[in-house]
Order: sequence, then structure tokens, then C-alpha cells
Amino acid sequence: MRHDGRLQNQLRPIRVERPFATAAPGSVLIHAGNTSVLCTASIDDSVPPWKMKQDPPTGWVTAEYNMLPGSTSPRKNRERSGKVDGRSQEIQRLIGRSLRAAVDTAALGPRTITIDCDVIRADGGTRTLSITGGFIALVDAVNSLKPAGVDPKKVLIASIAAVSVGVHQGVAVLDLDYPEDSRAEVDMNVVMTGEGRFVEVQGSAEKGTFSPEQLQAQLALAIDGVRQLSQVQREILGKDWPF
Amino acid sequence: MRHDGRLQNQLRPIRVERPFATAAPGSVLIHAGNTSVLCTASIDDSVPPWKMKQDPPTGWVTAEYNMLPGSTSPRKNRERSGKVDGRSQEIQRLIGRSLRAAVDTAALGPRTITIDCDVIRADGGTRTLSITGGFIALVDAVNSLKPAGVDPKKVLIASIAAVSVGVHQGVAVLDLDYPEDSRAEVDMNVVMTGEGRFVEVQGSAEKGTFSPEQLQAQLALAIDGVRQLSQVQREILGKDWPF
Amino acid sequence: MRHDGRLQNQLRPIRVERPFATAAPGSVLIHAGNTSVLCTASIDDSVPPWKMKQDPPTGWVTAEYNMLPGSTSPRKNRERSGKVDGRSQEIQRLIGRSLRAAVDTAALGPRTITIDCDVIRADGGTRTLSITGGFIALVDAVNSLKPAGVDPKKVLIASIAAVSVGVHQGVAVLDLDYPEDSRAEVDMNVVMTGEGRFVEVQGSAEKGTFSPEQLQAQLALAIDGVRQLSQVQREILGKDWPF
Amino acid sequence: MRHDGRLQNQLRPIRVERPFATAAPGSVLIHAGNTSVLCTASIDDSVPPWKMKQDPPTGWVTAEYNMLPGSTSPRKNRERSGKVDGRSQEIQRLIGRSLRAAVDTAALGPRTITIDCDVIRADGGTRTLSITGGFIALVDAVNSLKPAGVDPKKVLIASIAAVSVGVHQGVAVLDLDYPEDSRAEVDMNVVMTGEGRFVEVQGSAEKGTFSPEQLQAQLALAIDGVRQLSQVQREILGKDWPF
Amino acid sequence: MRHDGRLQNQLRPIRVERPFATAAPGSVLIHAGNTSVLCTASIDDSVPPWKMKQDPPTGWVTAEYNMLPGSTSPRKNRERSGKVDGRSQEIQRLIGRSLRAAVDTAALGPRTITIDCDVIRADGGTRTLSITGGFIALVDAVNSLKPAGVDPKKVLIASIAAVSVGVHQGVAVLDLDYPEDSRAEVDMNVVMTGEGRFVEVQGSAEKGTFSPEQLQAQLALAIDGVRQLSQVQREILGKDWPF
Amino acid sequence: MRHDGRLQNQLRPIRVERPFATAAPGSVLIHAGNTSVLCTASIDDSVPPWKMKQDPPTGWVTAEYNMLPGSTSPRKNRERSGKVDGRSQEIQRLIGRSLRAAVDTAALGPRTITIDCDVIRADGGTRTLSITGGFIALVDAVNSLKPAGVDPKKVLIASIAAVSVGVHQGVAVLDLDYPEDSRAEVDMNVVMTGEGRFVEVQGSAEKGTFSPEQLQAQLALAIDGVRQLSQVQREILGKDWPF
Repeated sequence: MRHDGRLQNQLRPIRVERPFATAAPGSVLIHAGNTSVLCTASIDDSVPPWKMKQDPPTGWVTAEYNMLPGSTSPRKNRERSGKVDGRSQEIQRLIGRSLRAAVDTAALGPRTITIDCDVIRADGGTRTLSITGGFIALVDAVNSLKPAGVDPKKVLIASIAAVSVGVHQGVAVLDLDYPEDSRAEVDMNVVMTGEGRFVEVQGSAEKGTFSPEQLQAQLALAIDGVRQLSQVQREILGKDWPF
Repeated sequence: MRHDGRLQNQLRPIRVERPFATAAPGSVLIHAGNTSVLCTASIDDSVPPWKMKQDPPTGWVTAEYNMLPGSTSPRKNRERSGKVDGRSQEIQRLIGRSLRAAVDTAALGPRTITIDCDVIRADGGTRTLSITGGFIALVDAVNSLKPAGVDPKKVLIASIAAVSVGVHQGVAVLDLDYPEDSRAEVDMNVVMTGEGRFVEVQGSAEKGTFSPEQLQAQLALAIDGVRQLSQVQREILGKDWPF
Repeated sequence: MRHDGRLQNQLRPIRVERPFATAAPGSVLIHAGNTSVLCTASIDDSVPPWKMKQDPPTGWVTAEYNMLPGSTSPRKNRERSGKVDGRSQEIQRLIGRSLRAAVDTAALGPRTITIDCDVIRADGGTRTLSITGGFIALVDAVNSLKPAGVDPKKVLIASIAAVSVGVHQGVAVLDLDYPEDSRAEVDMNVVMTGEGRFVEVQGSAEKGTFSPEQLQAQLALAIDGVRQLSQVQREILGKDWPF
Repeated sequence: MRHDGRLQNQLRPIRVERPFATAAPGSVLIHAGNTSVLCTASIDDSVPPWKMKQDPPTGWVTAEYNMLPGSTSPRKNRERSGKVDGRSQEIQRLIGRSLRAAVDTAALGPRTITIDCDVIRADGGTRTLSITGGFIALVDAVNSLKPAGVDPKKVLIASIAAVSVGVHQGVAVLDLDYPEDSRAEVDMNVVMTGEGRFVEVQGSAEKGTFSPEQLQAQLALAIDGVRQLSQVQREILGKDWPF
Repeated sequence: MRHDGRLQNQLRPIRVERPFATAAPGSVLIHAGNTSVLCTASIDDSVPPWKMKQDPPTGWVTAEYNMLPGSTSPRKNRERSGKVDGRSQEIQRLIGRSLRAAVDTAALGPRTITIDCDVIRADGGTRTLSITGGFIALVDAVNSLKPAGVDPKKVLIASIAAVSVGVHQGVAVLDLDYPEDSRAEVDMNVVMTGEGRFVEVQGSAEKGTFSPEQLQAQLALAIDGVRQLSQVQREILGKDWPF
Repeated sequence: MRHDGRLQNQLRPIRVERPFATAAPGSVLIHAGNTSVLCTASIDDSVPPWKMKQDPPTGWVTAEYNMLPGSTSPRKNRERSGKVDGRSQEIQRLIGRSLRAAVDTAALGPRTITIDCDVIRADGGTRTLSITGGFIALVDAVNSLKPAGVDPKKVLIASIAAVSVGVHQGVAVLDLDYPEDSRAEVDMNVVMTGEGRFVEVQGSAEKGTFSPEQLQAQLALAIDGVRQLSQVQREILGKDWPF
């Protein structure tokens, strides 16, 4: 039994406010337990310079990740010194790579979609929740391009969701919250498509090392967790589900 | 008649979600029409170095202001380059000075309260709404210190609210939204106490100049607007109102 | 009686060295009591990128403000760290906005005039003296464009001067020096045209708050002070006065 | 058959110059095919501030990764702008975490060992070669502490090596060089101990996604590759092998 | 005959305004022809951290060099980006080293004297004029310490002055102005004591190379030029001359 | 007799590994005693913007200097903060100016050659060894351009080498190592052509001042030292010697 009563393979409850009050074409406030992330998707009719060299230029999807100062206690300083810290950079690179796997950038056309993930409250799993919520905002943004002649069914080629797994007190568990994460021996983040293929696997021994058997046990939990999250995404998007 | 049907001296409707989902002791999401600001108040048991030289050291109240990328269209870049832009700096200095007028820093004791104002949606008046909402978060944070022996009635010496006024098409108007603000001839921000004394007056001619009569007309509107906002603050705080 | 013997509504004596030894088309060293500012106006035959989108592109006037290290005691560090401090940014934005009110940028043509205000000695009122002296340098720079076909009478549409007022020991006073400014309860900076219209009004309670009556008393002093400063500018410029 | 004639499960030849000409207590120039990395280990008798709060303070192992400008063509700019790029940060965080798994920081005592990995020539696999070579430099540095009473057999608790695997033209391959890496569908980096336990697993789909079967095929190759590299480390260190 | 009528071995006229309007204990505005530099010397009762390790801690003399934006045409941008350009750094390091040769830092005691050299107008020779004028400001600052028990005759151990020499159209010339400097084949800066000993010799071929004979001709001119400048310094300081 | 047994006018032994393992067209690892510098020369088919204004655009030669962290003890921090320190900037400007004296940039054509000097081990004289080794890398890079129609005999107009001299315990000595350099009274760096003409002369009194006689004694040693180094360069380059 886990400290909050969940089973080893049980997700925290997911709740989504959609659309949330912003000016962006895609915007959701997604909650998993006490972790909350505001995911917004903005569209810009231009692409990075290195994309312009392609003929015809294809689109681009990128992401930024940020924890608001009040999302954690003690307060987290803003990253205004000119140095985005290594952790934030790693996370936003992961989010960007993951969501690009959802998109046919040629079908998107010469546009950049930026997924901003601002953590309102941090209780573990902020990077995976950013991906899961970011996909919903991405779908809304792509759908908003229909009047411009974009066909969402061609642009969106896979649904993407992500979950954390880990080894805590020797046992593999799904979707760690902060009290678990901070004491876990291994921490893994797994990004997959709704069809069960891998996009990213990142596992780190936080204390000591882990065995091949522990690796396999975590992978099995992650596969099952992403399957459930994909179902949640489908229900939330309803008729806007692009597949 | 204004473009949204309001009278010359009419505020936009105020709505407050309190507490909003964060880890901070004070947190409100405040809306004025389509402008929304997340105000959180965090407490740190230390003070800046120059405060430590006082004997006994008194407390400090400071503020940070930030527009989230999706708060406006086109998307606003994050201030991560190491240079907080001049406008943001001016605004957060204004918020900090204004809210310090609410506090007896000696009674607060050697603590720093940081008010973070993150704009979720920008439709004019973000700085004044940050002050009005920031005061509510500040009260909640000070009240949270009661178990530590702090007396909120001694710490909080005035209620603070703020409003914008301007001259639009030659007429003085209260609480400009973005369409009005972007075409106004004069833009003023006025910060006052609930008892009708001034904390800050900042007026700029955006196009041309303004007459002494126009200055007086704006001041009259502002005095009335802040009086209404103070009443809203009192209702929202209810039994937590410190005076 | 004030600490230096001045009356409540008396300015410090103004002295101007014009032109001062620089390579710029406009350059004055202006003194008000013990405050001295070197104001230079440089002309560049280009405009910022966002100006280039206008058709035809209009001109631009901007300002930079800097305190030399030896202008105050203890020595002030140079702003070389990549972060111009908030106070300097606020001041140079104020100077730029104020002097733009003097200029018809369409008549100026696609040129940028930069007003550099380098404080040689700081004894209170550096920002307002920068504006008053900067206007003189601006006029000299615009006059230097006559051979290029520019008509100063069309470019210059108003004279601009500025003064500080405040409340010191409960009494409103004009043109505070540093000993007064550092102990004032309220500090206001007022920028006006020679014809008595407002460009900027910025008042802050430094300690406590201020009443509507105190606000009015300060405004009256400021109106009178700027009127005197405008007369000084006219005498200094003599036949170069553009109106 | 691979483009350079290697089998699917064949490493590039490893060559090590030890010690290499530096002032550091550990220094090796390690080559894997045409990839060359200078790994130096320096010792500092202090620890980061957050370590000082532990009682007694334990040691620390950290790493920095850098590509020299001439290591690749076209020349790579130095990271002197104040922003270490995201890729470099990710890599040096990976190297640091990996090598900390080799060390009992309590037995090390209050010292910091910094592993500098400077890439002299880049032909794929620089991060994994940095870890494999960095471990050798780390052993030399720890051995140099014997006169200070440090017991290397207590400090060093595992040997660490790393290898890349990937999927290229649908086939899983070991130890990709640059021509393979730049066209691979999946890229994985695996860090393990000499005893076959995992420290880090990082796999990314570079194009499209990958199946559970492809994940397993890569893991099998990596386990075998690290086993070979551990044997090479043991031979190079000879009598200095600490286990 | 040179373009301004001077002989090969003739200095430009020197003029000094002393003290100039600043708050610093030493301040001179020094002119050599059309080059003008404001040299101020500030005193701080502390020393850099690495000096504190000495027992007893000795004093320190340092310098900063800056060209004001209006000192040259076109306007020079301020060095506010966080990167002091290489030329400025070289120059201020040269000024600091040169003036330290004038001082017995043990006799100075644990104080830092900062010499700020702000170029008001640049017409060649700004770095050497900064040294020559900076020495005068330094003497005034040291003399101001008499009430604190400092003996200027012990602190000041040499007078320091500097001059540029060069090869222009094949001929060695003294004290180049900008038109000469910009076309010179060789540019040398020589810093010496009033007693004819060298502190710094820096010569660069700007175009091509120079012969041993040309080196000797320039050295002879420099020795004579510094001798004259030392005499000027003595006359300006009058009874304050410390030797 | 010097501490390492050398005569007053004796160089340390020179050893060169050429080419060294990098991707650059010119690359040498040069050793002088225990000082080792990796010099690489990269070619880019573009020139800086200010060069493009020339018609036809001529080429450019520039240099960067860096000490690797393990090159000295204690470890030297990397220059990643955005501020290249003053010493590094001075040195790389010196290397660039010196090597440009070897090249007819018009004959080079619109190309930039960058000489990267990364110090592997520092035992005095790193800047002069960078120049001496950098010249060899430069020659190799220029020779690599023959297939592009470049004639090395036209591009390369002089051979360049450099050496340090100093005054140690009152005696002028050639090619100081670190123990000598750190205690020397005077430190000079002299850059010359193989034909005995000067490119740069930089001498600083590190403690006290130096006499005209000491200056001459050092110059004589330097002239002899560079003559020997030029001979070494000729032998190493063999048939690739361009003159």
C-alpha cells in the first residue's frame, strides 16, 4: 500500500480545465492529484531560420517549461538571470521532442507551434503531465487552423502521453508523487503513443543502481499507465479527437 | 458610451478565485473583465542583506511581475535572456512600493513576503489589478503567520487598491481595457488606500500632452474607482479583513 | 526656511556650459546647484527596425541615463554587468518619453536622435535636470540638420522642462536637493511644456501616504517651477530658440 | 554489414594515452575510432555549500563537458556567451550522475573531484566515451589520495562504463559513429556497472517511434558492449584497478 | 611637418581643470589638444578579498576606462551588455598597472583607490592621457587622506606619466592625434616614471612590421615626451607635488 | 645558472606533434618544456560583416585562446559565465594581430582562418608558444587551400614566432618557465618575423620599474630567441615551408 492509498499500478486522478483563460488557441489547466500545469499552445506564422532552408519549408513544434515561483515551497526563484537551469532545459527539450512525434511537420506547413508549460503547483510528475496536457493543447491549436486550410487528420499522426515510474522501497510503482519521488531509488519517464510505441525512455538510478529485472518491471507499468492516459485524452477531446 | 457598453466611470466586473491551486500561503486568481492575474504571496524567514544592518531587523515586502507567454497574442517571449525588460521592472517596482504602504515592517518582523504577479490573460490594467489582487494575497499570507505570534492588525496598516484612468477621444474614462488603452491620449495609474489617501500617481501623455483640467478629471474618476475596489476587497476577505 | 536658505517655491540656480567639449552636434553641461549633468544629442541616419515598417518611416528620439562612478559618494559601480538597474531604466524611459513630446517625428524624417545624460555630480533632481538640459541639446542637434533640409520650426513642436516637488516635514517644496529628497515624505517629478500642459506626472509616497490637498499643493509648485525653467531655456538658446 | 565493416555488435577499437600531459592527478586521452576525448580529474579540498550542511560533510563528484572548436567541421563556436547550450548541459549532468554511482562520497571525505571531458575529435559517441574514459581518470585521482589516508577500495564501489546503441535502417547496432548516428531512427545511451547493473538508460526516437521489441534488442547489445568496455578499463588500469 | 603643424617631437598642449565638479576626492578634467578625459579618484575603506589574506592587508589601486557615447562620432554604444569589450579591458588593466607603480600599497593601508577615466572627447591618445591625468587625481586622493594619518610622501613613490609614439609615413612621431593614429604603421604606448625608468612598453605593428632602428627612434621620442609631461604634472600640482 | 640548469639565453626544448587528432585542416600539439598548447586552424568561407564592405572582400585571420581546466593546479574554471576574462582577451587579441602579420589577406580571398589555442598544460610562456605553434597550423591550413586555387607563396608573406624574456633577480633571461615568471621583476613578450623585424613588443614591470639598459638587454635576448624558433619552425614544416 502506498502512502496515499494507491495501488502499485494506479494513476492519480486527472482533471482538465479546457479551455483555460488565456489568449492562446490551445490552453488547458491539467491536474494530476496536486500537480497542476497550465499548457498553452501558440501559433506563429514563421519558422526558425534553419527551417527556412528547406524547400518547401516545413513546420516546427517546440516547448518551454517553467515552474512559477509559488508552485513549490520554499518559493522558487524565477529564471531571469540569463541562465535557464540545466533541469528546465532538459525538461523542455524532452517535451518538445515528444510532441514533435505527434506531428507531420510537412502537413503543418511553415508555422511554429510553441507549447508553454507553466507549473502552477508541483507535487511530482510535472514533466510527464506537461506532455500529456501539452498534447491536448496541441490538438486544439491544430484544430484552430482548419479555416486556414489545414487538415488536422494529416497533421496529427499519433497521440502522445507520458508517465513516470520508479522503484520505491524496492518495488516498482506508477506515477510517483513528490514524497515518493524524493525517496525513490530509480526514476524513469516514459513517453509513448496511444498505439503503444515508444518515443522516449529515460531512467536514472538516483541511489545505487538497478537490475535488468527492475527495468522490465517499470517498463510494464509505464506501458499500462500511458494506455490509461491516452484513454483520458480521448474522452476529454471528445469530438475534437483527431484520429 | 464606451465600446463595451460601460459608462465613463464604470469598472469592469471583478471576480476572485481564492485560494487558487498553489503551494503559497496566499494565492488568488483575480479577473477584471478579460484580464486575469495569478497573485501569490510567499514568506521567507530572512530579509535582504541591507535590512540585516538594522537593529532589530525589520521585514520586507517585494513583488515580481511577469506576463506568461500565452497571456497575449502574438505570444510574448519569456524574459530569460538575463535582461528583465524595462516595462516589467517598472511595474514590479510599482507593485512592491504600493504594497509596502500596507505594512508596518517592524511589526512584520525579520521576514520577506514576495508577491508574485503572473499575468494569465492581458486585456489592459494588469499592473493595477496585480496591486488590487496582490493586497488580498498579502492579507492571507500575513494571517497565516498568526501561529508564529504575528498580529495581523498590527502588521497591516492600510488597505491598498489601484486603478487605471485615461483620456480616450478627449474624455476621461475609468479602468481602460486594451482596445481603449492602446488608443488613449493619456494613461494614468493611481494607487490609493481604502481611506482615500494617495500612494502613487503616474500619468503619461501617450500622444501629445494634457491640460490641468484633464488631470483633475482623471483624478476624480480614480478616487471613485479605488473606493469601489476597496469595497470589493473587503467583501472577498470577509472575516479575514484585518481592520 | 529650507536648510540652504531657499524659499518653499525657489529653484536652485541654473548654469549651462554650451557647447561642452564633445564630438556630438548637441552638448551641454547643465548645473542646478551641485547637480551637474552632461547632456549630449547624437544623430544617426537610421531608425529602429519597428520604425522601418512605417511608410514613410518617421524619426525617433530616445535617451540613455547614467551616473558616472565619481558622481556620488561612496563611488557608484558602473552598470557593466549586463543588467541596467531598474532605477536607471525607469529614468531613461521617462527622459525619452518626455523629449519625444517635443518632436514631430514625421518632420524629423528617418533619423534617430539619442540624448545621453551622464550625471557628473548628483545632488538630487538628476532626472528632471536631464530633461531640462536634454531639451537644449535636442534643439542644438535639430538645428544642426538645417543643411540637410530639416526645418527646426516644424520638427520642434513644444519646449519641454521638468522639475521635482515633494513634501518635506509636512510642507510642499520645489526642486529638492539630496538632503531634502532623502528625507521627503512624498517625491514627485513633473514634466511640462513651456505652454503649461502636462507630459508626465509621477508621484510616490516614500513614507506613508499623502492627501489630495498635498497632491494639489505640489502640482501648483511644479507648474510655477517649470514656467521659470522654460524661461531659462529660452534665454540660453537665444536666437536658436525654435518657436 | 556496416559502412565501416563492423558487425552489428562490434565496438570501435579503444586506445588510451595515460597519463596525458596535464597538471591534473587523473588525465587520459581516450580514443574510440575517430572520437577522442581528453578526460582530466582534478581534486579540490572543498565541497559545494549545500554539502557543507551535512554532518560530517561528504564529498562530491561533478563533471563538465565541452567540445573544442576544432573537434568538428565546420568549427564549433566556444560556449562563452554565458549560455551553456542545452545539449552540453544535459551531457555533463549525465556524466556527473553516472560517475557518482562509482563513488561512496562519505568515504571520499569533504573533497570535490571534477571530471573535465574536452572533446578533441567528435565522430559519434562522445558522451559515452567521456564516461568510460572519465572513470579511468577518476580512479587515478582517487588513487592519488592514498598519501592523504584515503582508501580507494572504500571510495570506489563500482566500475562504470557506457555505450551507445541505436536502430539504423531497421537494425539494432552497437557503438554508432557519426555517419550512423546522424541517420539512426533511435538513439540510446546506456550506462552500466562492470557487474551488469544499470545506472542510466536514455533512448529517444529521432524519427518516428520504436517498438517494444526494438527496445529489447538495443538493451541486449548495450549489456554486451558495456561488458567488453569494462574489460578494457580493467586491462588499462592493471594493478591500479581498485576492486 | 605634421598635419597640424607640430614638430616630430612636439606634444599637443595640455590643459587641466582641477578640481572638476564631482563628489570624488580627486577629480581632474584633462585636455591634450582635442582629447579630453575626466579622471576621478575615489577611496573605499576596503580591499579585494584576495588582499584580505595578507597580514597586514595592504592597499590596492585599480582603474576603469570608459568612452562616453558622445565622445566620438558616430556615437559609441555604452558597454551595458555585460561584455566589456576587449579594447576597454586592455586599457583599464594598463592604467591600473601603471598607477600601481606610483604607490607603496603597504603605506596606503587597507584601502582601495579607484581611478575612473571617462573619455569626454576622443582624438587619439586617450589611454596615455588617462594615465597622465589619473596620476594627478591619485595624488589629490592620497593627499586627502592626511587627516586619517596617511603620509603621502610614503605612499607615493614615483610620479607616472605616459605618451604615445608611432611611425607615420616612415617617420617616428610623438603624441599622435586621431588622424595620425589611424594611418600610422606602428603604434606604441610608453609609461615611465618622472625619473626616466620604464613601467610599460607596448608597441604594435598596425600595418606590416618595424625594424630595430624604428623601435629605437620611437623609444627616444617617448623618453623625451614623458619628461615634458612630468614637468607639466609638477607645475599643476604645485605645492601638492608629493616628492 | 637558472633553476632548471639552462643558460641565460637558452630556450626550453621544443617538440611538435603534427598533425594532431582533430578535424581541422591545421592542427599541432606543441610543447616547450612542460608547456603544451593545442593549436588548430579552421577555415570558414565567409568573412566578418565589416569585411564584406570592402570590394573585393579580403580575408581575415583571428585567434581564440583558452586554458583547459586541467592545465593548471588548482583547476581553472571555464570561461562560461559570459565574461571572457581580461587576460584571455588580451592574449587572443595579441595572437590574432601577430598571425595577421604573416598573411596577405587580399591573396587569401574572402575566407576566415581561426586559430584556436587551447592550453593543455601551463608552465609559463603559453601566449608566445601559441603564436609559434599557431603559425605552423596556419601554414598547414593555407596549404590545404591549394586545390581551391590559393597560392600559399602569395598568401604567406612572413614567418612569425614569439618568445618571452624577463628580468629575474636582476638578470635578463630568455623563455621563462612558471617558477621564473612568477618571481620576475619584468616580463616581456616579443613577436618577430623570421627576418628579424618586430611585430609586437609588450613589456611590463611586475615589481617596481626597469631601466633603459634592462630594456635593451631583454630585446637582444628576444631577437636571438626568435631566430632559433624560426629555425625550428622551418625544420618542422620541411617541404611545406612556404618561402
